[in-house]
Amino acid sequence: MSMHLNLFIMGCGHHRAAWRHPQSAAEKMGDIRHFEALARTAERGRFDAVFFADGHAAGNVAGGPLWFLEPLTALSAMARASEHIGLISTISSTFYTPFHAARLLASLDHISDGRMGWNLVTSMFDTEARNHGYTAMPPHAERYARAEEFADTLLALWDSWGDDALRLDRAGSFADPDKVRPINHRGEHFLVDGPLTVPRSPQGRPVLFQAGASDQGCDLAARYAEAIYAVAYDLESAQDYYRDIQARVAAAGRSPVPVMPGLVTYVGSTMDEARARQRELDELLPMADSLHQLGTFIGQDCSDWELDAPMPQLPPLEEFTGPKGRYATILRIIECEQPTLRQLLGRLAAGGGHCTMIGTPESIADEMQRWVEQGGADGFNLMPPSLPSSIDDFVDQVVPVLQKRGLFRREYTASTLRGHLGLERPGA
Amino acid sequence: MSMHLNLFIMGCGHHRAAWRHPQSAAEKMGDIRHFEALARTAERGRFDAVFFADGHAAGNVAGGPLWFLEPLTALSAMARASEHIGLISTISSTFYTPFHAARLLASLDHISDGRMGWNLVTSMFDTEARNHGYTAMPPHAERYARAEEFADTLLALWDSWGDDALRLDRAGSFADPDKVRPINHRGEHFLVDGPLTVPRSPQGRPVLFQAGASDQGCDLAARYAEAIYAVAYDLESAQDYYRDIQARVAAAGRSPVPVMPGLVTYVGSTMDEARARQRELDELLPMADSLHQLGTFIGQDCSDWELDAPMPQLPPLEEFTGPKGRYATILRIIECEQPTLRQLLGRLAAGGGHCTMIGTPESIADEMQRWVEQGGADGFNLMPPSLPSSIDDFVDQVVPVLQKRGLFRREYTASTLRGHLGLERPGA
Repeated sequence: MSMHLNLFIMGCGHHRAAWRHPQSAAEKMGDIRHFEALARTAERGRFDAVFFADGHAAGNVAGGPLWFLEPLTALSAMARASEHIGLISTISSTFYTPFHAARLLASLDHISDGRMGWNLVTSMFDTEARNHGYTAMPPHAERYARAEEFADTLLALWDSWGDDALRLDRAGSFADPDKVRPINHRGEHFLVDGPLTVPRSPQGRPVLFQAGASDQGCDLAARYAEAIYAVAYDLESAQDYYRDIQARVAAAGRSPVPVMPGLVTYVGSTMDEARARQRELDELLPMADSLHQLGTFIGQDCSDWELDAPMPQLPPLEEFTGPKGRYATILRIIECEQPTLRQLLGRLAAGGGHCTMIGTPESIADEMQRWVEQGGADGFNLMPPSLPSSIDDFVDQVVPVLQKRGLFRREYTASTLRGHLGLERPGA
Repeated sequence: MSMHLNLFIMGCGHHRAAWRHPQSAAEKMGDIRHFEALARTAERGRFDAVFFADGHAAGNVAGGPLWFLEPLTALSAMARASEHIGLISTISSTFYTPFHAARLLASLDHISDGRMGWNLVTSMFDTEARNHGYTAMPPHAERYARAEEFADTLLALWDSWGDDALRLDRAGSFADPDKVRPINHRGEHFLVDGPLTVPRSPQGRPVLFQAGASDQGCDLAARYAEAIYAVAYDLESAQDYYRDIQARVAAAGRSPVPVMPGLVTYVGSTMDEARARQRELDELLPMADSLHQLGTFIGQDCSDWELDAPMPQLPPLEEFTGPKGRYATILRIIECEQPTLRQLLGRLAAGGGHCTMIGTPESIADEMQRWVEQGGADGFNLMPPSLPSSIDDFVDQVVPVLQKRGLFRREYTASTLRGHLGLERPGA
C-alpha cells in the first residue's frame, strides 16, 4: 500500500501570515524560479503532483497575496523544470469556454509529456463574476449544471482525435480525416463543434480532480473525478467523507477513486520544536485583523476578548444563522483542542478547517498511516504553512519515514500523472 | 540604423508541403523541445522575438498541420529555454474575455522577465465561432469594435496596479490598497470590474502588435499598435503601406511605429542552390490539391492546365468577383515573375502574398537593406519555408552579413522586448 502525496502550492505558504516572516518568499510571487524550485522539491520527495488553486479576483491586497501568476502558464514552465512530477491546475467551469480549457490543458499534457491534471471547480464570488462579464454569480444549481456540461464537453473534445489519427504519411495525408471528428455539442450552456486543434495527448486526457463538498459537488465528483481533494478536520470526519463519496462513486458505476484530504503539518525534532514553528507564524498575525475575521465567522464581536484565556462557549450550530461549514469546524476545534483565543486564531490562519498535524517526523508519519489504514484517506494534499521552508521540512524529514515503512514510493515507477495515481489511460 | 527581426514560427515551416520533406519536423508538432530549439536559434541570431499566429479551429487535417500547441503555454516553456529573445502570441479579441487575456499575458511577462508581446487579432472563420458558442462569426465591423474595446480593457487592467503598489512591508501591508484600483469597465461588449490578479509586469505591459490590413484594421493599428506586421509583395507595395500606416499613426497623434513585413527566404551559396532549395519543397506539393486550391483563388477550373507552360492571361481585377486581395497578388506575381503554372503554385505555397527573396546571403542582405533604406520596412517578420532548416540557414548565413554592414545588432543591448524594439516602458 502506497499513499499519494500532492503539494498544494500557495505563494508564501498556507498560513495567512507566512509572507510576514523575515525569510518569506514575499518578493518572489511573480518569480517563476520560486515555483520551479517548489516543483523540484516535491519531485525530490517523489510526490505525485503539485497543485494550484485559482481565483479570478484580486483579494484583500493589503492583507497579503493569495496568488499572482496564472496557473496554466506557471505550470508550463514548471513542467520544463521537472521530469516526473504531475502538474495540476484549477480550471473554473464558470468562466472558461470549454474549447479554451480543453486546448490549454491538452497542450500542457503534450508539453509535460503526460503529467497534466485539472481540478474542475465552479467559481463562487460576485467579484469574480464581475471580471468576466456577469453582474453577479449565477445560482449554485446553475453553476453545477454548467460544470457538468463543461466536463462532458472537455472529455468529448479530448476524444475528438483518435489515438491513431496521426498518419504523418509524407506521400499521403498528415492525419486520417475519419479519425478526427467534430463533436457537434449543442447543450444548455455551450455550443462547440470541434474537433480540437490539438491531437490526443500523452495521457489520452489530463487527469480530472474534483473537490466535492456540497451535495451537488459530491455527486459531480462521484460521476467525473479520477481523484478527489477533500476537507477533513480529523480522522472521524475523513472516514465519514470517504465512506460517503466512495458509495456515491460506486452508485455511479465506477471503481473507487483516490481521495486526498488537505493536510497542514508543522514538523520538528521534538514536539516543542514543532509547536515553536507554529507559534512563530501565529505570532506574525495582525491581531486586530484576525479578530475581525473570526468575528465574521462566528457572528459576534470578539475584538475585546482576552487573547490568552480559553475560548468562551459559543452558541450551538443550530442557533447559528451564517455559513455553517466553517462554524461547525470552529465548534469542533474548541471542543477537541480547548484552545485559547490566540491559539484558535492561529489554527484558523493555516488551512482553515483542514487537518493539522504537529509533531516529530515519526509522530506525523504515525498519524498519516492511521488515516490511510483506517479508511480516511488514500493520501494527502499537503498544505505547507510556509513555503519553501515547511515543504523542505516535510520532504527531508517525514518522507524518509514513510518510505522506510513502505508507505510511500522511493522512486517513480511511472512517467505520467495517471501512472503515479494508478489510473488507466482511457481510450478515445 | 538597426533593423528588427522576428521569427514567425509555423510548426514545420511556412511552405505548405514542408512537412512532407523526409527530414521535416512533422513528428514534433507536440514536442516543446522543437519549439524551444527554434527560440534558441532565433536568439543565437539576435532576433527581437519569436511569434506565433493562432486559430481556433482544426484545419484540413489531411493536408497538413498549421499548428498544434496552444501558443501561450508553449511560449511559457520557450521563455524558460531562452534569455533575451521576445515572445509574441496572437490573441483573439473575438473569443477571449479581456480578463483571461490580460491575466495570461501579464503572467507571461513576469515569467519571461519582461519579454512578452501580443498580436491583437479578430478571428474570421465560422468554424472558429462555432467552437466558442456562436453559430456564426459576428460581422466585420462588430468584430473590430469589439477588438478596440478589448484593447482598451486590457490596457486598463494592466494599469490597475501602480508600479509602486507592492509594499511587502512585513509589519504592515502587502500592497497599497490606494494603488490597486478597480477599472469598472462597462462597455458595449465587456463588463470588467478589475483590478487584475497580477501586479504590474516587468515591461509595464506586454508589447502590442497588430497586423492591420483592412481599412478598419489599419486604423486600429494606428491607434493601438506599438509594432506592426504587414503583408507586402514587393518594395513598392511595402512603401505604399508604410506611408499610409505611418500617416494614420501620425493622425492618431503618435510617434512612428516599427513596421515589419512578412518575408520568405530561400538562401543558397549560389542562386542556383537557393532555387534548388525552393524547388525541392515545391516538388513535394500534391499537384491535384494545389490546382484545386488555385482554382478557388482565381474562380476557374485549372485542373487540366499545362504545369510547365507559362501561366495563361487571367481576367483583370475589376472583373473578378471573389476575394480581391489574394487575386491581386496572383496577378502581380504573374506580371512580375512570368511563372509557369508549377512555379506559381510553389510561390503561393509559402507565405502566400508575402515577399519572397531567393538568393545568396549577400543578395538577400542587399534586398533587405534596400527595403529598410527606402522606406518599405523597419525590419522583417521571417517566415521560413521549412523549420528548422530555413531559419538555420538565415541565422548562420544572412545575419552575419547584416551584422557586418551595421544593419543588425551583434549582441543584445536590452533585456526586454520593449528594449529590443526601442520602445519606452509606459507608466501606469
